[in-house]
Amino acid sequence: MTATPRLRLRDLGITIGTYPPGPLNAITDVDGVEVGHVTLHEGDRTRTGATAILPHGGNLFQHKVPAGIAVLNGFGKFAGISQIEELGEIETPILLTNTLAIGRAIEAISRFTLDQAGNERVTSLNAVVGETNDSRLNDIRAARPTVDEMLMAITCARGSAVEEGGVGAGTGTVAFGLKGGIGTASRIVPSGNERYTLGVLVQSNYGGHLRIDGRPHANEPRHDKDGSIVMILATDAPLASRNLARLATRCHGGLARTGAALSNGSGDYALAFSTHEGVRRTPDRRRGVHAYPDLSNDAVSPLFEAAIEVTEEAILNSLAMAEPTTGYDTAKDRPSFFDALDLKRQRR
Amino acid sequence: MTATPRLRLRDLGITIGTYPPGPLNAITDVDGVEVGHVTLHEGDRTRTGATAILPHGGNLFQHKVPAGIAVLNGFGKFAGISQIEELGEIETPILLTNTLAIGRAIEAISRFTLDQAGNERVTSLNAVVGETNDSRLNDIRAARPTVDEMLMAITCARGSAVEEGGVGAGTGTVAFGLKGGIGTASRIVPSGNERYTLGVLVQSNYGGHLRIDGRPHANEPRHDKDGSIVMILATDAPLASRNLARLATRCHGGLARTGAALSNGSGDYALAFSTHEGVRRTPDRRRGVHAYPDLSNDAVSPLFEAAIEVTEEAILNSLAMAEPTTGYDTAKDRPSFFDALDLKRQRR
Amino acid sequence: MTATPRLRLRDLGITIGTYPPGPLNAITDVDGVEVGHVTLHEGDRTRTGATAILPHGGNLFQHKVPAGIAVLNGFGKFAGISQIEELGEIETPILLTNTLAIGRAIEAISRFTLDQAGNERVTSLNAVVGETNDSRLNDIRAARPTVDEMLMAITCARGSAVEEGGVGAGTGTVAFGLKGGIGTASRIVPSGNERYTLGVLVQSNYGGHLRIDGRPHANEPRHDKDGSIVMILATDAPLASRNLARLATRCHGGLARTGAALSNGSGDYALAFSTHEGVRRTPDRRRGVHAYPDLSNDAVSPLFEAAIEVTEEAILNSLAMAEPTTGYDTAKDRPSFFDALDLKRQRR
Amino acid sequence: MTATPRLRLRDLGITIGTYPPGPLNAITDVDGVEVGHVTLHEGDRTRTGATAILPHGGNLFQHKVPAGIAVLNGFGKFAGISQIEELGEIETPILLTNTLAIGRAIEAISRFTLDQAGNERVTSLNAVVGETNDSRLNDIRAARPTVDEMLMAITCARGSAVEEGGVGAGTGTVAFGLKGGIGTASRIVPSGNERYTLGVLVQSNYGGHLRIDGRPHANEPRHDKDGSIVMILATDAPLASRNLARLATRCHGGLARTGAALSNGSGDYALAFSTHEGVRRTPDRRRGVHAYPDLSNDAVSPLFEAAIEVTEEAILNSLAMAEPTTGYDTAKDRPSFFDALDLKRQRR
Repeated sequence: MTATPRLRLRDLGITIGTYPPGPLNAITDVDGVEVGHVTLHEGDRTRTGATAILPHGGNLFQHKVPAGIAVLNGFGKFAGISQIEELGEIETPILLTNTLAIGRAIEAISRFTLDQAGNERVTSLNAVVGETNDSRLNDIRAARPTVDEMLMAITCARGSAVEEGGVGAGTGTVAFGLKGGIGTASRIVPSGNERYTLGVLVQSNYGGHLRIDGRPHANEPRHDKDGSIVMILATDAPLASRNLARLATRCHGGLARTGAALSNGSGDYALAFSTHEGVRRTPDRRRGVHAYPDLSNDAVSPLFEAAIEVTEEAILNSLAMAEPTTGYDTAKDRPSFFDALDLKRQRR
Repeated sequence: MTATPRLRLRDLGITIGTYPPGPLNAITDVDGVEVGHVTLHEGDRTRTGATAILPHGGNLFQHKVPAGIAVLNGFGKFAGISQIEELGEIETPILLTNTLAIGRAIEAISRFTLDQAGNERVTSLNAVVGETNDSRLNDIRAARPTVDEMLMAITCARGSAVEEGGVGAGTGTVAFGLKGGIGTASRIVPSGNERYTLGVLVQSNYGGHLRIDGRPHANEPRHDKDGSIVMILATDAPLASRNLARLATRCHGGLARTGAALSNGSGDYALAFSTHEGVRRTPDRRRGVHAYPDLSNDAVSPLFEAAIEVTEEAILNSLAMAEPTTGYDTAKDRPSFFDALDLKRQRR
Repeated sequence: MTATPRLRLRDLGITIGTYPPGPLNAITDVDGVEVGHVTLHEGDRTRTGATAILPHGGNLFQHKVPAGIAVLNGFGKFAGISQIEELGEIETPILLTNTLAIGRAIEAISRFTLDQAGNERVTSLNAVVGETNDSRLNDIRAARPTVDEMLMAITCARGSAVEEGGVGAGTGTVAFGLKGGIGTASRIVPSGNERYTLGVLVQSNYGGHLRIDGRPHANEPRHDKDGSIVMILATDAPLASRNLARLATRCHGGLARTGAALSNGSGDYALAFSTHEGVRRTPDRRRGVHAYPDLSNDAVSPLFEAAIEVTEEAILNSLAMAEPTTGYDTAKDRPSFFDALDLKRQRR
Repeated sequence: MTATPRLRLRDLGITIGTYPPGPLNAITDVDGVEVGHVTLHEGDRTRTGATAILPHGGNLFQHKVPAGIAVLNGFGKFAGISQIEELGEIETPILLTNTLAIGRAIEAISRFTLDQAGNERVTSLNAVVGETNDSRLNDIRAARPTVDEMLMAITCARGSAVEEGGVGAGTGTVAFGLKGGIGTASRIVPSGNERYTLGVLVQSNYGGHLRIDGRPHANEPRHDKDGSIVMILATDAPLASRNLARLATRCHGGLARTGAALSNGSGDYALAFSTHEGVRRTPDRRRGVHAYPDLSNDAVSPLFEAAIEVTEEAILNSLAMAEPTTGYDTAKDRPSFFDALDLKRQRR
């Protein structure tokens, strides 16, 4: 790896949108959310990994969180969709990894969940896994990460600042012909007398003509429009699955604003969940009637707008924080965001 | 019309399923639900009408009810779907009518809602209209019902026993080659310490090979597989839109059990709403956070099973209560359920 | 009205995207497509109208065209969705109008289709109608356009240049706090040895923070995030309904790039159809097996990218071509794009 | 195992519906389709397995087949849905197995596909896997089948008669409180001058009140309404993905007719694909425009009706061919269809 400086977008003087970020400007600003990476950067051929997002650090199977999903282009293998849509909830950690590792990621989530204290009688679980194809830098056919490596991403998850760029599931990804990877950002949104936090984490691996806050990127490499993106949104606002699915849809607005080509080959998935304690589906709430707090349709618009801008910034962070990387397919050396751009000069 | 006796299915000794019906065995057993018919049976050519279903007798636009919809085969013009799916609610009366009257039905619901006290500032409303094609008996191109006739169906709606057979939106419909029409039924479902009521009203106009509680209908006329059905389900259980949409899906199970051919030409729609006061979206609940009671995923199965059987019975009632009818296309004289069947003899 | 000059976006020196436009830079560059407006700008209170788009000038019911639809936010009353999704085709003219006129628009399409030579036996038709809410400038409760006015929009449709701005269904619409309206644009897209044309027509009535080719609009009025948009895309590429629905989804990418807030209250609908003669569903093709030309999944990406940019330009044209307008609600005088902006100065 | 005779439904004198079956009355009557089972019936605790369905015996990744999917109740982990919906095709063998084996099944399909001659450069594939929960008879947490066992199901697939009952993915399943399993059936459907074959294979593991051709099952055990079903439909009719998805929807009609309770806990999935050579997406058809034969909307109804009845019969065959089985949870000894019923006596 090189010594190229890496700065997040705000440290470059670029601010996306109007809502303020949380303290870490990361998905972990949403209280309770934990993130873990396993990064496999080995020799000339291995550039892959896994990233785990845990809605909370407890037993997710017993304390499910409501969730909604939005598929913009479904050329991908995102696991768990139909049950999320049917029941409106997730019950496991979320894993992001590479396209050919989806089966191993499901197996890892199964093992983790079955082994967790309190789950001794569990015989069914809906593993949630997103993926993009890192084969431009990684020997994707070589069956990494293994199940055990996936498990490490889950068990090392923490609620602190999130490492970005070519780490975890972003180790081998490429976006707009540049090195892509993991990016994150957050927003604080006032709503009546409350303040809600939204955080997004993305795995960027797609293409188009890159825009930075609307402006074309100065020295775009031969552009590359293929690939995919997974966007995970967390919020502490009390939302049911219907409005979480609508919130997830807005992530696609942020994606479009970065100049995405939205090509045939994209697998563009957004998943949103709520960490609000009042909307969790705990064992004592699973019988009969329980009253769940719910933010009304008429009050969700500020969250929708924040979802657009926080996704846009998370994507740009994934590029800004990625170092130039060579890999498996040496003809496709991937420059970084900075190699192609003197960003400060470009800003007015 | 003839003097053929008309009996509801239970009066013929046939019981569908295991849950008991409510006092009226009708959608109006769900407290607050009102039904109104306008029947246009005029001369040789006019066999059409409209049926209004009101989730409650108050101002629906101001006191919206949660709702979900399930489309089995979408060859139809059901109005209002995308907003029901997006917002999970209905805000107007529901009208059923014929295929070419859908525009006039929307216009009638608009006028009714705009003129209602309290709605002086309303500039947008989502009219909910279902339809089937009654052109086998009705001169459907003749632009009846008019807007004013549609309005009468709404304003005459009452919460009492529901007239069935060739009335209202069922005046000219045909099912299984027999005279179809409006049918209704209800079920009482225990759930924990509560008892919930489900009621269904259908407009039957489809085909296949008729089954009565699973048994083939004895003397089926030359069968006719075309047509459509609209099924409206009301319940007083506290359900949000997601589980109401799932409940609506179960109506299709009842449809299938009657021997429906589910042909290309069918428009098969089911809409479910909850009348529970706690889940209404009233003006005071439209800001910020409100807690809504919700029956858990794990507790909805009895309601799902009841939805199957109550739909099956409502369909069979629509046939059993319809009198033989001639109409516009005289070559297609439509016998009744009874003309073709000695039902009591068939029963063991 | 004022004498403010109106220029299309390209005449202001602003080019969106990379594909060249067709000769008219309008949806009517797609061979056979016709557009008609009825504009109702009367007194102080009437600012509304209707816009008809005809996929071809023949009998649409007999010569149906394949179509697909994409709903980004379904808070709207778009008519005809379920049948388009089920059968993958449209069989009538498309009408755009105001929210409370949807019933009358359906009635107008019915009358037009029933009266067309060759349709004497038609008893069912799926009217396609989009709407946005023009009540910020129009007395929307006053029941205009009438059915007859709607019919005029259909019968006056022509394949020539399309009038833009505050005309037809855009007479009373507002976007980003500015006067919105009708806009159109087109693109020529090479594909193998072929060249395909894409054209879009929009009815803009939504909000957010306006971006012009990514750059913030200089002097934004107090911003206004409410409202909706309907986007109609025509192409001569041979596509089946599945890829047309995917193409329609890309219109939402163009919408997002203009700075749309994608708020709760939006009704954001995109409909795409193909005019290619080989994919029409004509009477002789409705029995048995017919071979339809189809552009492969792997070849659609250039069309997808063009759909993003052509929609973005059509929206900006709708603003650039609209004159400032006062209307029903005089407190909300609507400036034009030009009143708020010295565009040429802003461009570098 | 016992010596209880096992007979298919037709050998018991029961005929479902009106279309004739193919020579094997099995999914393998559809030319080219292959089925393979791995059955793991070991000791007291292992009652599980895998069943592979191959749309053709060639390289599926290079010669993809169009497909459509219909989810009735999505409480399940069916893998591959979003790409099937987006691209309208499948590109791998289909595996059925138990709920906790879905990750290993995906891994097996990956290995099989990556290793197949001609796929040396493949870096992405969409594995299609269905599952039901066999934990009432199987120690499902014990991680069987393994990846290698899954692979055996694929490699042993043949186009001959299909073993039914407690084999393959049906080894440990239970339906209606009876032993369930794998069942299959087929139909020959005339269409114009052509004859098309439809075949279905199911993995039955659900509940309700069993009906046999509409009649209640005589001595139902304490009924059991939980569980799921996967239904795979093959046809040689030339259909595109849209009509294949519609065809899949009709499988749910067959399911409903067997008395399914359609409970909250069900994962009810139907997948339909076409083996017609003309609709395959081969490498030479993946560039530019290719003409695909397509059976028109107006001609699909006979196939729809056949899909209902063939699914109903396949389900009943899965029960009739299953032997009584004890397993992991010994308190839940599962009788067979025959232990509970003197079928011949019940028939009139």
